[in-house]
Amino acid sequence: MENIEREKIKKQAFDSALKAFRADEVPVGAVIFDSKTGEIIACNHNQTEQKKDVLAHAEMLAIHSASKKLGRKFLDGYSMYVTLEPCVMCAGAISWARLDAVYYGASDHKTGAIRQGAKVFTRSQTHHKPKSRLFSSQECSKIMTQFFRAKRLSKKV
Amino acid sequence: MENIEREKIKKQAFDSALKAFRADEVPVGAVIFDSKTGEIIACNHNQTEQKKDVLAHAEMLAIHSASKKLGRKFLDGYSMYVTLEPCVMCAGAISWARLDAVYYGASDHKTGAIRQGAKVFTRSQTHHKPKSRLFSSQECSKIMTQFFRAKRLSKKV
Repeated sequence: MENIEREKIKKQAFDSALKAFRADEVPVGAVIFDSKTGEIIACNHNQTEQKKDVLAHAEMLAIHSASKKLGRKFLDGYSMYVTLEPCVMCAGAISWARLDAVYYGASDHKTGAIRQGAKVFTRSQTHHKPKSRLFSSQECSKIMTQFFRAKRLSKKV
Repeated sequence: MENIEREKIKKQAFDSALKAFRADEVPVGAVIFDSKTGEIIACNHNQTEQKKDVLAHAEMLAIHSASKKLGRKFLDGYSMYVTLEPCVMCAGAISWARLDAVYYGASDHKTGAIRQGAKVFTRSQTHHKPKSRLFSSQECSKIMTQFFRAKRLSKKV
């Protein structure tokens, strides 16, 4: 995959997070793409508030969209880029979906479950262990900080 | 809650697992009910094959149905009975949904994440920790054994 494809994927995921931010949702965006060509097949943002559904994390919606588009439940041959480290639910879903790899833009010390907490992909119990890598991105961290700062300030008013 | 309500809930969950079995799905059934009265508001079986969607575990579908029915994302005041110990994805979803408690009919040494594996509800990182209890049920264990035995046999033919 070319660098230009990589940048396109990261941009699309971040734009999705921005869409969530503007809709007053925790700003997370996820993209699923062909691991070889970089072709994007799903791009979703967190919609737990709008859908009134705790399952509507960006990663879950992207897996659902990709499966629907491809007409199959296993997504081998595809990878995910997500702006924030997936939680335990999403890490479990990523493993069930047999995605090749997960790349993420910011660590999540509170609910991240890849390199901290449950460390889902390192457990002997986890059948499919996708590759994972943190692509530290200032904008992905910053948008989270800004969102929660704004939330705290609005509660003080 | 009366004993008769408890038995009704367990029966409905098992009947759901049976429905999954007959549809050639891993036989798991989940029921969400009012923690005080026992009134059932959602009942679903595993449908990952039919929906071609790895997210379509019985617990996930039940949370989705309950949220839709109640028009809210948090399910406090409600509990779940599920025939098999939830996996890491479902345990994460149950915690996000803020269910009061989870009762399950059989342990799952392969993918269970309540009393083994990631032990999601005992982690300091987990914000909401529902009560959990194993109600050891022979029929819930037996239906799983039967399903996988039949699968192995059909592969040998």
